[in-house]
Amino acid sequence: MTRLGIIGSGGRMGRAIAQAIADAGHELAGGVDRDEDVAPLAAASDVLIDFSSPSALEGNLDAAIAAGVPILIGTTGLEERHHWLIDQAADKIAVLQTGNTSLGVNMLAFLVEEAAKRLGEDWDIEIIETHHRMKVDAPSGTALLLGEAAARGREVGLSNVAVRGRDGITGARESGTIGFAALRGGSVAGDHTVHFLADNERLSLSHIAENRGIFARGAVKGALWLAGRPAGRYGMREVLGL
Amino acid sequence: MTRLGIIGSGGRMGRAIAQAIADAGHELAGGVDRDEDVAPLAAASDVLIDFSSPSALEGNLDAAIAAGVPILIGTTGLEERHHWLIDQAADKIAVLQTGNTSLGVNMLAFLVEEAAKRLGEDWDIEIIETHHRMKVDAPSGTALLLGEAAARGREVGLSNVAVRGRDGITGARESGTIGFAALRGGSVAGDHTVHFLADNERLSLSHIAENRGIFARGAVKGALWLAGRPAGRYGMREVLGL
Amino acid sequence: MTRLGIIGSGGRMGRAIAQAIADAGHELAGGVDRDEDVAPLAAASDVLIDFSSPSALEGNLDAAIAAGVPILIGTTGLEERHHWLIDQAADKIAVLQTGNTSLGVNMLAFLVEEAAKRLGEDWDIEIIETHHRMKVDAPSGTALLLGEAAARGREVGLSNVAVRGRDGITGARESGTIGFAALRGGSVAGDHTVHFLADNERLSLSHIAENRGIFARGAVKGALWLAGRPAGRYGMREVLGL
Amino acid sequence: MTRLGIIGSGGRMGRAIAQAIADAGHELAGGVDRDEDVAPLAAASDVLIDFSSPSALEGNLDAAIAAGVPILIGTTGLEERHHWLIDQAADKIAVLQTGNTSLGVNMLAFLVEEAAKRLGEDWDIEIIETHHRMKVDAPSGTALLLGEAAARGREVGLSNVAVRGRDGITGARESGTIGFAALRGGSVAGDHTVHFLADNERLSLSHIAENRGIFARGAVKGALWLAGRPAGRYGMREVLGL
Repeated sequence: MTRLGIIGSGGRMGRAIAQAIADAGHELAGGVDRDEDVAPLAAASDVLIDFSSPSALEGNLDAAIAAGVPILIGTTGLEERHHWLIDQAADKIAVLQTGNTSLGVNMLAFLVEEAAKRLGEDWDIEIIETHHRMKVDAPSGTALLLGEAAARGREVGLSNVAVRGRDGITGARESGTIGFAALRGGSVAGDHTVHFLADNERLSLSHIAENRGIFARGAVKGALWLAGRPAGRYGMREVLGL
Repeated sequence: MTRLGIIGSGGRMGRAIAQAIADAGHELAGGVDRDEDVAPLAAASDVLIDFSSPSALEGNLDAAIAAGVPILIGTTGLEERHHWLIDQAADKIAVLQTGNTSLGVNMLAFLVEEAAKRLGEDWDIEIIETHHRMKVDAPSGTALLLGEAAARGREVGLSNVAVRGRDGITGARESGTIGFAALRGGSVAGDHTVHFLADNERLSLSHIAENRGIFARGAVKGALWLAGRPAGRYGMREVLGL
Repeated sequence: MTRLGIIGSGGRMGRAIAQAIADAGHELAGGVDRDEDVAPLAAASDVLIDFSSPSALEGNLDAAIAAGVPILIGTTGLEERHHWLIDQAADKIAVLQTGNTSLGVNMLAFLVEEAAKRLGEDWDIEIIETHHRMKVDAPSGTALLLGEAAARGREVGLSNVAVRGRDGITGARESGTIGFAALRGGSVAGDHTVHFLADNERLSLSHIAENRGIFARGAVKGALWLAGRPAGRYGMREVLGL
Repeated sequence: MTRLGIIGSGGRMGRAIAQAIADAGHELAGGVDRDEDVAPLAAASDVLIDFSSPSALEGNLDAAIAAGVPILIGTTGLEERHHWLIDQAADKIAVLQTGNTSLGVNMLAFLVEEAAKRLGEDWDIEIIETHHRMKVDAPSGTALLLGEAAARGREVGLSNVAVRGRDGITGARESGTIGFAALRGGSVAGDHTVHFLADNERLSLSHIAENRGIFARGAVKGALWLAGRPAGRYGMREVLGL
């Protein structure tokens, strides 16, 4: 039985992770929320799971390093300097950082990269996602993650080829671009499809989340995989064996 | 056997209609293209099919009236004055004007209006369409036709509630809006889906065109229905018995 | 505030309905489970909701009649004699019987009937549904309900035209048949699509349930609508105003 | 410019291939149909494309060997002894045998195998396909090809785990099985989807053929790739670089 500690335990994701730890038959070492001291939690845990905020990242990494415990970072909105901090920490402890802990989404990203690598530019790439009516941004972080996977497969930079929010007199589609479209409504937890559209045929790769619990379960699966690993930076791909 | 005359016979749609007339076992009375005189064709036809251009509309209607033959108008890009001309002509002859001659699309519009009328505003409406990479505008005319049907069902004006090309920090979805998104790629003849998204459930109504031949066949079906009708303005709905 | 009593309160659906009553801000008058006396519950309720079993139906209807309270019957697996009992009871009290309490599914059935009525037999009808891996029968009751709607639209009997579990050397599709296919896996709450497939175009009408809570909410909505109604037999269509 | 010879040139596929050769700007060396002598065609071709019948396979291979030209075998319904003949021929000339020449379908099969290899048995696999109303068998050969890919990924034999034509009281889904379902209607050229269904999430991988021309183009692409290759047995995977 592994002891898992949650940073950001009071948030919606934190509570879902506590439930997922119980469901998986492991031990919740405890949780801390904003401004609480992470050190005692780190000392009592075999692995930490961080779904707090970018501003808390540095302190969380320091506490993990001090206690010598691995940490999974699921916080979104990270910037370049946060990734630099993570790289530094990864010299001393095992760190798994991911924009999406769902196993299915990570598998989809892997398949999208493989397909983009092998299909020529005569296969136009379009990404469509649907989320609940409360979501405030478009496209979703996961759609961008999938776009990055497609761009990596083609060895281009996503920012150079992304076309977002197509509307009006657009002209014919420019070869090599990657299009994004977003639907919003109801309580949809998250649907994502990456289309590869060629002359007379189409390949469409989709992921459907029925509810947000999958992200909590994926985080616990990742944390359990991380427990006891040597120092280094990991992603969900290693968890999946991709 | 009905004799059908094509105005705009040299265009892609005109040629497809000639083929559809032959496939249906009827007689092609002939065709005219830009600047050719429509009068002799009108005299030789039981019904005219016009897929030319808005600028030619007035002359075409005059020729149909002079010959006393019904006319189907499939030309797109009509403005208010064109509709006024059509209304005038409809006092003297049978005129069927439509933005889409496909039976399936017109059935879809009917179902969308029925659903929008009966489902409350807690069912968010989103419309997504996919077309080939050469299409220069977004959303498609058919997506707008479907949006009009949804707005009519809700007794609102589409222009007041349409949200197009969602991108960036959009905020939560505003209740009562109708969203549009467009995908472009490959050789897709035209896919359209209208989603109604509520809490925990979704209704999705779709039409898929495998190729553009359906528009030609729908035009011929509409023209055959129109032959011999009394003066008046008709739509594809009457052809379908909706 | 309306007082709702649940017959079959101990089952999964009964518990979900109790939750939905609370969520809707109404009063749970109480619940009974197998072999418990329904009479006191009926006396304390403004309307009864029955999700028990066909064998308990007669006693439940008698208790509702004795107390003069309306009753919603959501029990599945009813046979002809059960419908006869319901018709008898409907002479004295308001009875709403339905195979599916979801508003979306009932709207879908309405649209399917409309489409089937208006589209000729050259539009082949195929029904596909997906449910979780624990479901023991195929096709689902809701798929059959949708097939009945399609058959009604065409004025044929479903049993005469249904083709189920297509496999092997089937020969070409027989015109006028209605096909059924079932997928099973994961935790899918219920996806249903009715396809109308013609030459070169397709109309597809779908419903997706994100979770089973919609059935409980639909039952409560139906029961609230039923409270205070005059004697008669009703369906979810009247609740929706279809 | 490569000279391509067609065996089975009078069939629907043979005629489509002749068109695809012209579209690709290559030379049609000629064609033979049933009982015609293949030897002169083989002598005049840089590569042969065989879409005839299993019974003609041995003679076709002999003619290719005698002329020393590579051959692409697209004939379906091959049995074990045909594969043995192909293996023998592949010692002397380059032979590409495939059940589906579409690049998209082969890419889909590759992705399905990758996903099946990496996702555990708690991801239920279900395969659904839709074809036109004239198709006489179910499931389609391509659905079986995709099922083989999934089974290979899981290191099981498809025949041991396939569940076809689910209908009636089926009981709960058995873990590790691969389900097949078939829809028939209209003029659908071929839609295939492989679903991986887990608790609360789903991965769906689809291919849509807009028309049958893609199979002809894929055959020509495969044949061009094959021209000049050393002796050996190849598949479409090598053409795609998978």
